[in-house]
Formats: sequence, C-alpha cells, structure tokens
Amino acid sequence: MLNFDYSNKTRIVFGKGTETQVGSLVKPYAEKILLHYGGGSIKKSGLYDRVAASLRESGVSFVELGGVQPNPRLSLIHQGIELCRREGIGFILAVGGGSVIDSAKAIAMGVPYDGDVWDFFATGKPIETALPVATILTLPATGSEASDGTVVTNEEAQLKLPYGDVILRPVFSIMNPELYFTLPENQVANGVCDMMSHIMERYFTNTTHTDVTDGLCESVLRTIMSNARILKRDHTNYDAWAEIALAGTVAHNGLLGLGREEDWGCHNMEHELSAIYDVAHGAGLAVVTPAWMRHIYKEHLPIFVQFAVNVMGVGGGLRDLEAVALEGIRRLQAFFTEMGQPSTLAGLGIDSRHLAQMAYKATHWPDGSPKPLGGLKKLSEQDALAVYQLAL
Amino acid sequence: MLNFDYSNKTRIVFGKGTETQVGSLVKPYAEKILLHYGGGSIKKSGLYDRVAASLRESGVSFVELGGVQPNPRLSLIHQGIELCRREGIGFILAVGGGSVIDSAKAIAMGVPYDGDVWDFFATGKPIETALPVATILTLPATGSEASDGTVVTNEEAQLKLPYGDVILRPVFSIMNPELYFTLPENQVANGVCDMMSHIMERYFTNTTHTDVTDGLCESVLRTIMSNARILKRDHTNYDAWAEIALAGTVAHNGLLGLGREEDWGCHNMEHELSAIYDVAHGAGLAVVTPAWMRHIYKEHLPIFVQFAVNVMGVGGGLRDLEAVALEGIRRLQAFFTEMGQPSTLAGLGIDSRHLAQMAYKATHWPDGSPKPLGGLKKLSEQDALAVYQLAL
Repeated sequence: MLNFDYSNKTRIVFGKGTETQVGSLVKPYAEKILLHYGGGSIKKSGLYDRVAASLRESGVSFVELGGVQPNPRLSLIHQGIELCRREGIGFILAVGGGSVIDSAKAIAMGVPYDGDVWDFFATGKPIETALPVATILTLPATGSEASDGTVVTNEEAQLKLPYGDVILRPVFSIMNPELYFTLPENQVANGVCDMMSHIMERYFTNTTHTDVTDGLCESVLRTIMSNARILKRDHTNYDAWAEIALAGTVAHNGLLGLGREEDWGCHNMEHELSAIYDVAHGAGLAVVTPAWMRHIYKEHLPIFVQFAVNVMGVGGGLRDLEAVALEGIRRLQAFFTEMGQPSTLAGLGIDSRHLAQMAYKATHWPDGSPKPLGGLKKLSEQDALAVYQLAL
Repeated sequence: MLNFDYSNKTRIVFGKGTETQVGSLVKPYAEKILLHYGGGSIKKSGLYDRVAASLRESGVSFVELGGVQPNPRLSLIHQGIELCRREGIGFILAVGGGSVIDSAKAIAMGVPYDGDVWDFFATGKPIETALPVATILTLPATGSEASDGTVVTNEEAQLKLPYGDVILRPVFSIMNPELYFTLPENQVANGVCDMMSHIMERYFTNTTHTDVTDGLCESVLRTIMSNARILKRDHTNYDAWAEIALAGTVAHNGLLGLGREEDWGCHNMEHELSAIYDVAHGAGLAVVTPAWMRHIYKEHLPIFVQFAVNVMGVGGGLRDLEAVALEGIRRLQAFFTEMGQPSTLAGLGIDSRHLAQMAYKATHWPDGSPKPLGGLKKLSEQDALAVYQLAL
C-alpha cells in the first residue's frame, strides 16, 4: 500500500423526497445562487418546481443557466462564469447528471480566476480556490457528485480534458433514487459502464498489498452488475436504483483508490472518442475497456486472473491462467452487451480514419509535450493505437 | 435501504513517516494546543520527541496532559477541560489509541459547555459545539480516529457510556503503520475484535436491500481476519499492519452503516463488563458477541446464514440453515480463540455475581428510564441476562 492523504467533505443526503431539503441545505452558504441544469427534463418532471419552491421557502434567490449538453461545453462554461460575476453569485447548485455537475465545477473554478478557465485543463496547473458547488443528482453515473474531478469539452479545439482537485468536491449532494425512474434505458447502461470503469481504473494497479481496497472494488463491481440486471427488467425498482446510486458514489469518491497507483488509461482513451465523435462516455468505455484488457492482460496475468475469479465469478481450475483471464474479459464484455452497449468502434459509428490522431492526442498535451497514459501498463502512442485497432 | 445523511470531514494522512507532518497540519488551526496522551509509551518509543519537534518547527506551542488509561476516566477529562480553559487552548491533539482519542473528544465537548460534560453521556442531549480534535493513532482498533463517537467511563458511578455527534469527527488523523510494530500482542487481538465488532454491529440488521454495504462489510471482515493471521506470525509486517489500520478506520467511519438500521447490542452489553470489571473492550466483545449470536440466530436465520457463507466461508449444502448459521458462529469464535481471546466470562475473570445488575444497566439510563438495546433483535433486560449467562 502506498502512502496517501485523503479527505472527502461532501455531505450525501440520500433517499426518498430528499430534494425538498435543498433550500435549508443551501441557506447556510448563500442567499443568491446560480441554478445550473441541462436540457430541461427537470422542468418536465416537476423537479425544477420542487427545487425552486424549496429555495424560495428558505429565502434563497437564484439566477438560472440551463442548456448543459452531454460532454459539457467550454462555451457555456464561459457564459456561466460571466453570469456569476455580473450577478455577484458565489454558490452554484447543479441539478442534473455528471455533465451538469462538471460544468458547474468548471464555472466554480473560473469565476475567481483572472485568465481563461481552460488554462487549468490544458496545463494541469493547480487552482487556488473555487466557488462552492452543491448538486441534486438526476443520473447516477459519473460519481461527480462526490468526486474531486470535472471533465470539459473544448468544442472548438476538439479537446476533452479532465481536471481534479479536492477543492472541487461538492459541499453536499442530494440523491433520491425515485428521480431515476424516468431515465432512458441507454442512460442506465452508460451510467453503469462509467461507474464500473471508475472502479476498474483503480483496481488494475501494480501496487501490491491492497487487500482492503481490492475487496471493496470487487464487492462494489459485483453489486453494480447484479442490480443493473434487476433494472434491466424492472426499470422503476427503488431498491435496485438505491444500490446503483450509492455504488456510483462509492465508485468515485476516492475511497477505492486509497494507497493504490491508479490507471485511467481507458478513460483518457475514451475521452478522445468523445472529443471527436461526441459519443456517450459510458458507451465509449464499454468498447475501449475490453480492448485495453485484451491488449495488456498477458503482461499482467495475476490481476486479470483475480478479476476473473473474484469479480466475474470464473470458477474451476486455475492451471491455465491465460484462459481464466480471457474468460473474465469475455464475461465483462458479455455483461456490457447484455446492458445494450456496442462492443466495437463500428457499433459507435467510428471507423479507422482518426485512430492515429486519437492515439497521438491521448499521449500528448495540447502543446505537444508528452502526456503519460495508463498506470498498470504505461501506454505509448503505439499502445493506444493498438487498443483502438483492437476495438474496431 | 433507508434514507441517510452522511458526511465525514476527517482527513486521513496515512503511511510511513507521516507523523512528521503533524506541525504543518496543526498550524492552520492553532498556534497553541493541548497534547493529550496515555501512559508514556510514546516517550519510550521516541514518537513524543518527533511530534514535539514537528510542532516546534511549525511554531506551534503545546501544553501536555498524559495519563489517559484504557476505558478513559471522567476525572482526567475534567482535568483536561480545566487545563484548556486556564491556558486558553482551542485545539486538542490526541497521540494514542482509542482511549486517548475518546478522552480528547470528551474534553473538546466539555470546554465550551457550562455544565458537567457527563450530562451529555448520561442524557444523550445534543452538543452545540466542540473544540477541534486531531489524532496520531498509535493503536488501530476503535476507529475513533475518523468516527463521530466517544466512550467514557465515570469511575465513581461505575458507568461506561458512549456519545456520538458528527461535530466530534477529528479534523485530521495521522496513521503510520510502522508505529504499530511495538504493540503488545494482546492489544492486536483486542483491536481486531473491536474493529470486527464495529462492522458486525452494522451488518446484522433488519433493513433489507443493503447490497452495497453488505458487500463492503463482508469484504472488510474477511480482510481483517486474513491480515490479523499474518500479524499473529509476523508482528512487524508493514503491509498487514497497513491493511488492519485502514480496515479499522473504514470499519467505523460510518460508511458501512449507510442506509441501515444498526445494532450495537454487543457493544453496549460489553460496556457493562468494562464498567464493573475494567476488562479490555476487545476481549469483552470476543466473549459477548458469539453468546449474543447463539441467543438470537434462530429468529434471524437468513442474515446468519449469509454471514456464515460470505464471511466465514462455510461451503457445501444450504439445506440445513441452522447448521450453517451455527457453523459460522463457531468459526467466528474459533478465530477469536486463535487470536488469543477468552471465549467465556470465566476467562475474563467474571462470575455470575453481577450479571443481573449488568443486564439492568444495559437496558436502563442512569436515571432509571428504559434504554433501548440492540437492533436486529430489540433486547429486553431478560435477553441481556440470557446473553451474559450463555457467555459464562
């Protein structure tokens, strides 16, 4: 186990009807806030009205900025920063999924910063401060509700880049599983793939003696799969949604990576797909992850065998370790297929045209300097290209 | 899963050499602190000198109060409260195990309170504020380094009572597994029993649909047992200590109980043993827990079968559920025995003389009003007596 320094300030208010507490939860922080949301589904569902009523009852006024799209755009973030400055706002409430929360975090970074907020994403330089952000989560997937990260798409530059700092953890997040009953089925599948990937990016590591976090990772992965299968046949099952929602938070609140070198190769290779083709992040991960596994498993057999046995339930003899590892990978891909995900880039509508460009971008910063990729295996540009090709 | 509201502010600074960071970690909070510790082992080991040097380098001065005993005494807490008031101290650094940390938390509660701090323990009434507490953990066991709880012994009244509030979570805790190499073997055994009990008090619940936390509990219990066995034969194994230390924190930081009704029957019945006989908490739990299980398992077979199979590794047929459940309990007791714990009250030097008195105290507040005991089964005074008798 490696040394670590961990804290997570996010207060999780979880369960039925909890969104009506938002006014009293915001009030100690601010009397005027930015209410940030997506395409308007929260207005159709009535959530917007309940949130607005709760804020008003607590004497909290708000300015709104809707219109966040999946793969949240830098242009809207710039608008949000201007709006907060103009209105003298110092607190952002994100009502939505990961894209809305990530957009809110980027606005929160940008408001107190003199330059362009994109500087932080393009260079990785540290932030000194950010506005407090809180969330009402409408789609369990990205874990952004308790994570220190945000991912933003610079649509002009066709760049999608992540940024992380503990300052960015939301001060509170409200999660009511009932809000997830109306989600489209493909968003469930994408969410499940994303949260499983958050765990696998931590699980596949060269760090040894990680029993506590190995066990936690394996247990949460199994729980996600079993409850995703329930949701597949019973879309409004409260209990299964509660498990998926809690699992999605635990997957990415930092706990499962304590004392471990993490990987993040698949996430970063997927970001290159999303940046050019605007595919759903979860769908992209469902394609990239098994390809990445097939590219590297022979060099790292023990952890892939452990994954096959402890997570995917591969039983029987262990004398042919390669066969066991491959069966684990095959079962993971079969699960993604069961969820309705594509298994190839072709299934995402992507051909070989931009693979070399994506492999270059996955391994270089915007200024052309080398960017490390992966942890279990440090991936070269050639490795990234090979993974994309395996996924064709 | 039940609704819940959870946050844990404690920053965990974990790993080799981390105690030398204490000065820079304290400095943002205070320039003058109370340094609280136990019987002086930290002076013999050299830890005291390293802590004092780090504080001095950061310009933090300190007043000391040593002498905390296991089952921390109210009388010393009163001294600490007076000392902080007299010296104008607003921050407490506990360097020690759970007793030192619990003593520090009680002092932190008492300093800003007009009456006797014991009022909170005797009545359960809410605190409004407390001084910030930080810790350097020298014995992984109680989880107090990231918990919201404290347990104090009023030696005059022969009462040992717990108190909990999120305000009491330490602001940071430093954990260096190397510090645990010199612990006596019985303290390892006691620590392991205590942390396992913290998980089992959450695991055994009537709440249904708790897959995420069930899986986390089971996984951490298995990890504790496997690494405790390593320590039994290799007392200075850094990796095993790191697993045990992290597991002890996760066991009691609140995560494993999210959305579950908790039990705490065994802890409270053990407190009655400690209050009268001053036995080690972990040893008391090792005796009380299997007795409690044997008293109630027939009424709650499914969770005891799940425990037997998923935690204790009982395999084979499941058609005789009682036999499976009993085998799980037998294996737990065998593990405690392997750790060197007694399996009966007689082994703790306790006879039947005070059983009725303990059963009464476990089910009544000091003022004589009824106090609830247990969760999975609500235990009456007669139940508590039966558990003690089963443990004789």
